[in-house]
Amino acid sequence: MARVVVDVMLKSEILDPQGEAVLGALPRLGVTDVASVRIGKRVEIEFDENARNVEEQSRVIADQLLANPVIENFAISIEGA
Amino acid sequence: MARVVVDVMLKSEILDPQGEAVLGALPRLGVTDVASVRIGKRVEIEFDENARNVEEQSRVIADQLLANPVIENFAISIEGA
Repeated sequence: MARVVVDVMLKSEILDPQGEAVLGALPRLGVTDVASVRIGKRVEIEFDENARNVEEQSRVIADQLLANPVIENFAISIEGA
Repeated sequence: MARVVVDVMLKSEILDPQGEAVLGALPRLGVTDVASVRIGKRVEIEFDENARNVEEQSRVIADQLLANPVIENFAISIEGA
């Protein structure tokens, strides 16, 4: 069974309020040497045994369902084809 | 500058409604050989140049801010220490 991981992150020029919120909370944990925090989505897609072209299919899924191309980038990695 | 990636995913026994929604939409894209879809968080933490113990600090951040230990697991990976 092939597992594909799609990581979807906001483009660097886009403000990330979630990341800013975490960054702002770090001093309370005693963590003071963090420059930035960015938060995105990690999507794990498990394909059937007989699936073919899993990378192309994942690109279709990412393009049309998982990422908003205006503000997000995505990266695809295959684990255990 | 060290970048640490924290991947937070729901535990396997926990229902993932977001993942189920994506799985249900795949046939409309012509994708029919996907067994499951799981969606979680990818958190990229950039540390300052002089930061030390980045893995331990990331574990503190993940434990206390990023993951709910009751329903989520997290994995830490360091990129370019």
